[in-house]
Amino acid sequence: MTLEKRLTEYWQSNSLTEPGSTVIVACSGGPDSLALLDILWSLKEKLAIKVVAAHFEHGIRGQASKDDESFVKNYCLEREISFYSESANIPELSRARGESLETCARQMRYAFLNRLAVELGGALIATAHHGDDQAETVLMHLLRGTGLNGLTGILPKRGNIIRPLLDFTKAELVEYCHHQGLSPRHDATNEETDCTRNRLRLQLLPLLKKEYNKNITRSLCNLAETASAEEELLHELTIKAEERLCQLDGRGENSYKIKISDFIKEPLAIRRRLIQQMVSKISHGTALSFQHIEAVLELIDRNATGSSLNLPDRCTAKISYDFFYLSKKTEKILTSHGTIEGTPYKILKLGSSVVLPYGDTISAYAADSLEGEKSFSKNKIYCDAAKCGTELIVRYRHDGDRIRFENGNKKLKDFFVDAKVERSSRDRVPLVVNSCTGDIIWVAGLRQTTVALADKDTKQYIILSYDKGEE
Amino acid sequence: MTLEKRLTEYWQSNSLTEPGSTVIVACSGGPDSLALLDILWSLKEKLAIKVVAAHFEHGIRGQASKDDESFVKNYCLEREISFYSESANIPELSRARGESLETCARQMRYAFLNRLAVELGGALIATAHHGDDQAETVLMHLLRGTGLNGLTGILPKRGNIIRPLLDFTKAELVEYCHHQGLSPRHDATNEETDCTRNRLRLQLLPLLKKEYNKNITRSLCNLAETASAEEELLHELTIKAEERLCQLDGRGENSYKIKISDFIKEPLAIRRRLIQQMVSKISHGTALSFQHIEAVLELIDRNATGSSLNLPDRCTAKISYDFFYLSKKTEKILTSHGTIEGTPYKILKLGSSVVLPYGDTISAYAADSLEGEKSFSKNKIYCDAAKCGTELIVRYRHDGDRIRFENGNKKLKDFFVDAKVERSSRDRVPLVVNSCTGDIIWVAGLRQTTVALADKDTKQYIILSYDKGEE
Repeated sequence: MTLEKRLTEYWQSNSLTEPGSTVIVACSGGPDSLALLDILWSLKEKLAIKVVAAHFEHGIRGQASKDDESFVKNYCLEREISFYSESANIPELSRARGESLETCARQMRYAFLNRLAVELGGALIATAHHGDDQAETVLMHLLRGTGLNGLTGILPKRGNIIRPLLDFTKAELVEYCHHQGLSPRHDATNEETDCTRNRLRLQLLPLLKKEYNKNITRSLCNLAETASAEEELLHELTIKAEERLCQLDGRGENSYKIKISDFIKEPLAIRRRLIQQMVSKISHGTALSFQHIEAVLELIDRNATGSSLNLPDRCTAKISYDFFYLSKKTEKILTSHGTIEGTPYKILKLGSSVVLPYGDTISAYAADSLEGEKSFSKNKIYCDAAKCGTELIVRYRHDGDRIRFENGNKKLKDFFVDAKVERSSRDRVPLVVNSCTGDIIWVAGLRQTTVALADKDTKQYIILSYDKGEE
Repeated sequence: MTLEKRLTEYWQSNSLTEPGSTVIVACSGGPDSLALLDILWSLKEKLAIKVVAAHFEHGIRGQASKDDESFVKNYCLEREISFYSESANIPELSRARGESLETCARQMRYAFLNRLAVELGGALIATAHHGDDQAETVLMHLLRGTGLNGLTGILPKRGNIIRPLLDFTKAELVEYCHHQGLSPRHDATNEETDCTRNRLRLQLLPLLKKEYNKNITRSLCNLAETASAEEELLHELTIKAEERLCQLDGRGENSYKIKISDFIKEPLAIRRRLIQQMVSKISHGTALSFQHIEAVLELIDRNATGSSLNLPDRCTAKISYDFFYLSKKTEKILTSHGTIEGTPYKILKLGSSVVLPYGDTISAYAADSLEGEKSFSKNKIYCDAAKCGTELIVRYRHDGDRIRFENGNKKLKDFFVDAKVERSSRDRVPLVVNSCTGDIIWVAGLRQTTVALADKDTKQYIILSYDKGEE
């Protein structure tokens, strides 16, 4: 079966796109992503998609980086493929932000691709992750310690990102380029400095291939596919069990109660997953270790009223008569009025508000233009929607927070000092954050950063407002 | 938590025994099994079990093997633990049977333990497999290529065998012996010559521990536990789907049909498992590769009447109008009357019969004595129940079959030649086989082997009879 036929089948069986979708191929110019762009371009009618290419020029390797960009641009020019690119000085930016080159480059690359996806009207982003990447990922999760969820590896589709090449090995993609007469650039972005992944790629996988199973890559990819479907089913069953068994404890979203007699009737696999799911829910993603889950099961098994167990991230399990409770101790936030209780962060959906401790609220809505919008102030700002990421988050400050302005960036703490915000009030100033990049968009009521500033190219706006409530 | 407390919890949460059960500890005299015997002896009241010890002296290492036996015997004598042992000359036996030392020793050891379990009135056999064995097993399956089922590793309970030490590392058991002042023998049986497992133990696991995760053993054991519960649930769901969807095709147990419109409504995980399960059923355990399962899914997806696919072990998948069929091409067995169709083997349950092609039958029932039993002949024999394994199987001859008599053993083929059985009839002479050891107990209608001969110590008999039917 040809590569094109296999890709088409993989595409269809994983329902990667709807007819008419626009697919942005993230192309570095290396063999993997060039093969992806070339195959998708040749299959665009068959797959009923529009294909465009995007290149992020990170400036890490000077002229070579610029040459990568020209290479992809020329490739697209010859074929009349729409080409988008963005440049950044990642070495400088990463130093300024105190991040590693790789983290910074990845964040900026995805921020660019996400903005482009919004600009192109909800396009999908295709990346060239292939079977070797998949095998490495599965093995890495396995070595770190994982359940079924880690064995699913990289998913063919997640949010607006699709990975059409997971069924192919690196060697097949290199061979494809050779066969098509393409001369890809040396793929420097693939030489990650992630130490574990590198050792895995250069030392462990070759050893396993030589001494244990020459088809280990294929075996691990198959495991990932099997595990994905089984994980999906088990996840659905857990959701159903949650609907049947879990009730909010009336203290808001931070505590659930479950009737013990019902709980113990569930299969062990569902009992384990339900505990993880509820803790993840009350604590925004906290992952429990196997030992923690077993300890909760044991607590429930002993069923002694009043007994309890501390879990990571201020979560607790507690037995009280016929029920057990999974709760998160709410944060004590110091304000000028004393301590109040709050949640660590909330998701801010467009067209709605989040209510914060003391009744203050942050609201967000989208607008095609600013006409008719009045009275922007420190408590009401507008942003470029394309720069806000896929989701906005409202949270309080963390250690190490930094904010970006026209003339560089500074510690949030220093900003508060300069803005003369009392120490006792700083912990309750809401921050609106781009969930993709983690960047602070707005120090609510005080200062908008440059992260999501609208400009002449802005196509859609997001209006944010802050109502301080009763205070 | 002490080792004893952890073991008690593991024992209870895995429901290893009913109160009053007899547990035979298979004890080589090495640290693992000596620790197991010592712990279970000290916990016998708490666990509400009777504990006895059994040692199989394989004669592989001459005097050292005999010393191992004396060591365990003395340990038991000092504590008044009931001790059972059996000796065999495995080096000689393995040569005669053309098997490896390890295979032969394992078969004979389990045959001895199974006989003892029957003699002791349905006792359980406890083996000292521990966490390091578990981690090796999970990793070995993973490297060979597996789904969730392989990741479950060694189960804490399977049939009449229990593994109470899977939650402990080898190091913990050695430490336990040291702490209790026990001086175990060097555990030669643990030095398996299984090449892959050895490399895994001596090369791969130490490398993974050193370079990737110092708790890799624990991580893999946790994965095995999580995977076991999830495998169990998914297996149950598949059984339920089978009951809903699969119908016998009216051609006996060798073909199932499934309505396509119902099948495609099932989750992908269940669709995959259902295909594997039905093929396993029609073909007595044939395992499909991931690629085969995907090929069947694709066949069903295309849904073109008349299209079909060959699978391993003479199984086929076929589409016909609204249904797909999973069938096994029945064996053509050459007889003096021409060819007949049959199944590869059948399980013979006590108190019932299996009907073979042409209507001939084999029956089995248990008896406490032979009083009142008359007319034993070439078509009706009696065996020692304790020597028959947990299950009897009826099958036809395979290449390489051998049978054992008083004066050694011979190829079944040579026996047929000597017994003047026509070549054309040999393929339809039923063989009754001990499912545990694979040994042939009876060449039905021709000759009983020495494998399950009753003697003065026989406590329970199995009576086998062969009715040649219409012929």
